[in-house]
Amino acid sequence: MRMYDILEHKAAGRCLTEAEIAWFMDGLCAGSIPDYQTSALLMAIFLNGMSEDELACWTDAMARSGDTVDLSAIAGVKVDKHSTGGIGDKTTVILGPILAACGGKLAKMSGRGLGFSGGTIDKLESLPGFRTGLDEAEFVRLANTVGVAVTGQTARVALADKKLYALRDVTATVNSIPLIASSIMSKKLASGSDKILLDVKVGTGAFMRTAEDGRALARAMVDIGRRNGKETVAVLTNMNRPLGRAVGNLLEMQEAYETLRGRGPADLTELCLWLSAKMLAMAGLGTPEDCRARAEAAVENGAAAEKFRQWIAAQGGDLRALEAPADFYPEPLCRVVRAEAGGFLAVRSAEDIGKASVALGAGRQTKEDAIDYTAGLVLAASPGEPVAAGQPLCRLYAADEARLDEGEALLREALAVEPEAPPAEPLILDVVEAP
Amino acid sequence: MRMYDILEHKAAGRCLTEAEIAWFMDGLCAGSIPDYQTSALLMAIFLNGMSEDELACWTDAMARSGDTVDLSAIAGVKVDKHSTGGIGDKTTVILGPILAACGGKLAKMSGRGLGFSGGTIDKLESLPGFRTGLDEAEFVRLANTVGVAVTGQTARVALADKKLYALRDVTATVNSIPLIASSIMSKKLASGSDKILLDVKVGTGAFMRTAEDGRALARAMVDIGRRNGKETVAVLTNMNRPLGRAVGNLLEMQEAYETLRGRGPADLTELCLWLSAKMLAMAGLGTPEDCRARAEAAVENGAAAEKFRQWIAAQGGDLRALEAPADFYPEPLCRVVRAEAGGFLAVRSAEDIGKASVALGAGRQTKEDAIDYTAGLVLAASPGEPVAAGQPLCRLYAADEARLDEGEALLREALAVEPEAPPAEPLILDVVEAP
Repeated sequence: MRMYDILEHKAAGRCLTEAEIAWFMDGLCAGSIPDYQTSALLMAIFLNGMSEDELACWTDAMARSGDTVDLSAIAGVKVDKHSTGGIGDKTTVILGPILAACGGKLAKMSGRGLGFSGGTIDKLESLPGFRTGLDEAEFVRLANTVGVAVTGQTARVALADKKLYALRDVTATVNSIPLIASSIMSKKLASGSDKILLDVKVGTGAFMRTAEDGRALARAMVDIGRRNGKETVAVLTNMNRPLGRAVGNLLEMQEAYETLRGRGPADLTELCLWLSAKMLAMAGLGTPEDCRARAEAAVENGAAAEKFRQWIAAQGGDLRALEAPADFYPEPLCRVVRAEAGGFLAVRSAEDIGKASVALGAGRQTKEDAIDYTAGLVLAASPGEPVAAGQPLCRLYAADEARLDEGEALLREALAVEPEAPPAEPLILDVVEAP
Repeated sequence: MRMYDILEHKAAGRCLTEAEIAWFMDGLCAGSIPDYQTSALLMAIFLNGMSEDELACWTDAMARSGDTVDLSAIAGVKVDKHSTGGIGDKTTVILGPILAACGGKLAKMSGRGLGFSGGTIDKLESLPGFRTGLDEAEFVRLANTVGVAVTGQTARVALADKKLYALRDVTATVNSIPLIASSIMSKKLASGSDKILLDVKVGTGAFMRTAEDGRALARAMVDIGRRNGKETVAVLTNMNRPLGRAVGNLLEMQEAYETLRGRGPADLTELCLWLSAKMLAMAGLGTPEDCRARAEAAVENGAAAEKFRQWIAAQGGDLRALEAPADFYPEPLCRVVRAEAGGFLAVRSAEDIGKASVALGAGRQTKEDAIDYTAGLVLAASPGEPVAAGQPLCRLYAADEARLDEGEALLREALAVEPEAPPAEPLILDVVEAP
């Protein structure tokens, strides 16, 4: 087989065969295919797309290109969950304890944040001592005893994805439904779960800007799961505003704990209950109605918060940082951004809120950047709520005035106070399941 | 400017701007753009095409990426000629002397052959002593005194083309109208002529297999010429059969000399007269009818053959090799391929005839291969002519029996004897000129 022929087939609009895909992934990981041929193939896929069969096969080959995780030592049906990334998305931290409190399990590999989108591993590491590099034995043990275990993705999972992503990133081929879908699903297929629930974010703070694009990505991923024998469900959720009010690592952990104690923002609470109920039902632990009722009860009766404390302690994290950050970190400067006139709070661009949090120090511009765990922002009102002139809109936290200035400028672009209340948008836009 | 943005624009189907194209060509030649980005751009161009404006600008930037030739020291209107390549195409060798005998000039850079298609420089070098590395002073002097000067293309002409071609060759992006058109025309624009006549070969022995493809390439090149201020005319000619009967370097030089003396095959003679008349008319040396009559006369009265002898001598070539090859080269083995049954000679694939000539030793499979100047083949009948069983169809020449075996096998695939005479095909299929 020759890479030239594979390129010729794809450029002519033909589908790659299973043998061609296997040969390519082997060569890619062995380093025998030059980057200039791989990048040409990526551009051909970007422009010509992939058939459903081809994409399922391509994703499976990516999944098998690195280590695969064996979760068979964990009892019960393992349901994995993945978010395509948004602003203020701390659902994994909340879901795990709710599921565990209801007799379910969350045994999950998570990633770090890059750019305006955060990552669960960074959020968890904002608790001093929290260990995100669990070995397999401890991972399995925590899942079986506590019911929650979250660990960082090892570099060897879906090896081909890392190589492909590095080239997509420099050849303007990131924004392609089959390439995005295969990147996400290859890691999910390799992660050893039985079923997969995908939270596809849609809006100004998400990679998918429109419901149409989100639905296309959701359908592609659900189809990849089905063709590879894993029940996959995708839910499209609103990301025209941050999820909850807090954006920033320790700030989000605080909000997650509040939510587990029944005091969280309405949108975040509702999404976590919805996802928990769905995952419990997918795991075969009850009817949808029953699962929903149990998830709500776990939050109300304190069982979920208790599971959270157990889990954080089991992974070595120090919960006291939530109540008394100043005992662990230098105290950040705080600036209050106030409404200049009265009206209704509106979000012009959720992405700009994410960028503001990065400017404040909560995120990374490049992979090498360090994170300031106490930096970030907390909205003082929810989008759509009335605000009076001079009333706080947002509190910003950062290590110095320069960062506060930059963050404030971005935030003022992102928020608006409108004379009319913006129309309410649904939180859950659609659910995509295999036919 | 960033290569990422250029890739994003092209992948989104937008046209590259003049500034983007200039920036890219500079970076390409300076070596500052990684191959994986260039190859992704080539694939995006391959799949999305280019607008006419964009292509003209792209080609001009390629032309200016290396040395450009100044022909202003040569008197008169300089008309360049280019063939897209075929089997047995020795027209340049014949045109030069006819033009010079009629008061015109041919001052031309030519290339070498690769694969099944031959090159003028190889054909000329089959004459011992022929110098194809003329310096500019000698090139100009020969053009002004003899009327013909042909030299090899320097490595520095259209530098960007060399880099782009090397990547196209390994990324299956060779077969793209804008990329082919810009590759050819960048060298023509750099070569300093005032006007350009393009011979676009169409058929089984050409890169363009259909008249439709040939016409699209012709239109693209004529448009590039027009937008860059050079009158350009393209003629589509039949390459479903070799041009003339001889394929092989010294064999083709012999046929060229025969044609200049009025004893050549009808198709080759007609095409050379047509092209000569067109070039003389483009140079402003008379009406089309007058130019045609003078070209015919130059062949009939011996003036063209005399110019040929002058030219070959001026560039150091030894004409005696045409009459007595054995005085200069080891005598090749000869094998006669005969008709197994009677009928009419037909060419199934002109490309296979080219491949047979390469197998015999007349061409190169890779750039490093040496050429056997006496190797090749000569058809014993013209396609369409009746042949009797046992009558010779072709004579093969090679250095050893193994090559003869390989050449014969390919040739027997390429030729057929049909019970019915194949329908006659026109030699000149179309002429494309700027509107």
